[in-house]
Amino acid sequence: MIGLSSNAVVMESLTSCAEEQHPSSLVTNCWSKNQESSGSQRPKCVRGFVLVHAGAGYHSESKAKEYKHACKRACQKAVDQLRAGAPAVEAVTAALVELEDSPFTNAGMGSNLNLSGEIECDASIMDGKSLHFGAVGALSGIKNPVLVANCLLNEAQKGKLSAGRIPPCFLVGRGAHDWAVSHGIPPCPSEKMATRFSLSAYKRNKRKMELAEGTDAEHHQTKKRRQSSENENGSGGLDTVGAVVVDLEGNVAAAVSSGGLAMKHPGRVGQAAHYGCGCWAENASNMNPFSTAVSTSGCGEHLIRTMLARECSAAMQSEDAHQALLEAMQNKFISSPFLAGEDRVLGGVIVLRSCRCVEAQPSPNIQGILVEFLWSHTTESMCVGYMSARDSKAKTHISRLPPGTVPGQSLAIEGGVCRLMVE
Amino acid sequence: MIGLSSNAVVMESLTSCAEEQHPSSLVTNCWSKNQESSGSQRPKCVRGFVLVHAGAGYHSESKAKEYKHACKRACQKAVDQLRAGAPAVEAVTAALVELEDSPFTNAGMGSNLNLSGEIECDASIMDGKSLHFGAVGALSGIKNPVLVANCLLNEAQKGKLSAGRIPPCFLVGRGAHDWAVSHGIPPCPSEKMATRFSLSAYKRNKRKMELAEGTDAEHHQTKKRRQSSENENGSGGLDTVGAVVVDLEGNVAAAVSSGGLAMKHPGRVGQAAHYGCGCWAENASNMNPFSTAVSTSGCGEHLIRTMLARECSAAMQSEDAHQALLEAMQNKFISSPFLAGEDRVLGGVIVLRSCRCVEAQPSPNIQGILVEFLWSHTTESMCVGYMSARDSKAKTHISRLPPGTVPGQSLAIEGGVCRLMVE
Repeated sequence: MIGLSSNAVVMESLTSCAEEQHPSSLVTNCWSKNQESSGSQRPKCVRGFVLVHAGAGYHSESKAKEYKHACKRACQKAVDQLRAGAPAVEAVTAALVELEDSPFTNAGMGSNLNLSGEIECDASIMDGKSLHFGAVGALSGIKNPVLVANCLLNEAQKGKLSAGRIPPCFLVGRGAHDWAVSHGIPPCPSEKMATRFSLSAYKRNKRKMELAEGTDAEHHQTKKRRQSSENENGSGGLDTVGAVVVDLEGNVAAAVSSGGLAMKHPGRVGQAAHYGCGCWAENASNMNPFSTAVSTSGCGEHLIRTMLARECSAAMQSEDAHQALLEAMQNKFISSPFLAGEDRVLGGVIVLRSCRCVEAQPSPNIQGILVEFLWSHTTESMCVGYMSARDSKAKTHISRLPPGTVPGQSLAIEGGVCRLMVE
Repeated sequence: MIGLSSNAVVMESLTSCAEEQHPSSLVTNCWSKNQESSGSQRPKCVRGFVLVHAGAGYHSESKAKEYKHACKRACQKAVDQLRAGAPAVEAVTAALVELEDSPFTNAGMGSNLNLSGEIECDASIMDGKSLHFGAVGALSGIKNPVLVANCLLNEAQKGKLSAGRIPPCFLVGRGAHDWAVSHGIPPCPSEKMATRFSLSAYKRNKRKMELAEGTDAEHHQTKKRRQSSENENGSGGLDTVGAVVVDLEGNVAAAVSSGGLAMKHPGRVGQAAHYGCGCWAENASNMNPFSTAVSTSGCGEHLIRTMLARECSAAMQSEDAHQALLEAMQNKFISSPFLAGEDRVLGGVIVLRSCRCVEAQPSPNIQGILVEFLWSHTTESMCVGYMSARDSKAKTHISRLPPGTVPGQSLAIEGGVCRLMVE
């Protein structure tokens, strides 16, 4: 716990959740790094901060390295943008493209296949400065759905279309595909987006379904469709990806992208395309002292019905960020009246909030942006990465529920703090 | 103002908005009807109440009769269900089917055509008791999209699918169509859903667009798409339909259905399919003293980005329903920071809230449900209808902004009150 200043916010996991890596060490690492380099010389600008996730779900030890590597690369891409002076919304897009391109995540390349063996992706993005939003749902044949969402956001900001028509913020299916192509985003044959892994998972799931329905048919003909094998789907396959960014000007942005649940019905749209559910970003305003950005992951239907991204964003206006997120996850998600009938509520969030503050050291002329970042999940695990524009490389972490706790009924919460300098 | 009891809530339009029919007379009519028939004899059960809208937009005098007639029939269908003991969610569905079937409304039959000359519908429904939600977006070839939304809601309440899969709450496009057909909802050839009116409007809009883009091409080649002719699209074509219902048990439900903006891009999904934006229904709970139900209409993008249905629902937990809705429409819609760049914010809502109360007359053993119902809009006009299960026929009304006010910057608000008796 060296190098912690008095105004560093120390985030700790719940005492009931033993973590493989203690979060306070994350805080220390992050904070001490910024403190160290700001000691002796006039600090350089630290042009922003990014936090990404490769999903709340189940991340096997065998693939942990790949997930972490994807998060690391995604952070680097966002930081490259921030260092080049790009706004938060472009940095968050760059992070998402990298996460979508990983064949190990359930987004873009390597997405889960639906019931018909096709890939249909959801993605959305929100700009905390303009409060504009762009989303695509059930989109096939585009390698990077987040680029379409970002393009929708950008186009909407240009104003009305010909004959006074209002530009769309949400497009789905074939129409979304054609719009993307007409706006310069290249199509990608769906078969190129499937991976050996996603294809073999599809075959395995298909067999399981046939087995489940076949067995049921013998014993409970009328209830055939309703027989569920709780652990078969487990919390796997929920590994949506996302990112939240704050740039040097204090603008925030958030994005999310998902291949959706494995074996979903064609046309099913999850939280990643749903306003207020997949991501949220809102700059500080007269009403809100903090800028907030949130990206969610997990079971889309649960995240839609609880509007988790927006709820977490609203909660983060409370003084104690850690306590606020803990209460939001407990009261607005696990114990939400909107999910009263659900035995296991599966999801996770990454959250960032920032506010401007005046530095005492090294000079009162230097303004700082205090960034608090957190993640919380009710799934077995959640893979995250984060990096400030001053860091030479990203930190990554797979947060896990402690052994013996029940996914969907317990939660883990962790986080850290970082300070951006503004000259 | 005869027959008003002391606990009747009198709703008045804003003093700045002269109405063709003064709303206090609506209140009087509605209230006095129930009062009169409850005076001398033991009151019969009044099995619920329905409020419908045929859109916030522009309703020409020449078609006023048709819009009102559609609202009247929709109310009757809902009341038929309520009298037969059906729950609110089934009554609201029955109302929507009737509104969709009208060739004059922009929902189901007679929907606006998109840029490709096709009909793609959005619809959603929410049950205040279970808090379940069902929605379809960009759905073609189904005569009554609300039936698919309702079917999704019902199926989701049955629990998990085979192999532990979570049932979808939101389906779009071809997948939604195929799901509907496999659940017994008959397909309808798209050409049968277009009307002479919608086809001629399409041709007229197409010509306008070509003209606008052609003219621009000569003068401002680079800004071609951005040239807008503010008044061409006007506030017409926004006439989504919807309904809110409370049943005898005090359960509320809400639904909404729309053909979307005329000349929208294929695949564009508006607020009618968006959770929290198109409709909202939430029974009273420990947290909320009132049951609330809301259905919205207007420019989908504005209604999505302000999440107007949910905002109005939350506002209705304040003591003064009229004041709460007025403030919500002003602060969360017209002056919303989410629509800071918009010069005209176009939309309307119908709102219902109810709470149980003990009757003083004719006997303290009789419980009542007090129903307050309101509508408000920033569009030129909004067509509504309402009916309690005791009424022999529905009342209908076209609310208009006063002459000289600017649509999108002014609002009208009206409403009434009704009491349901429970033996």
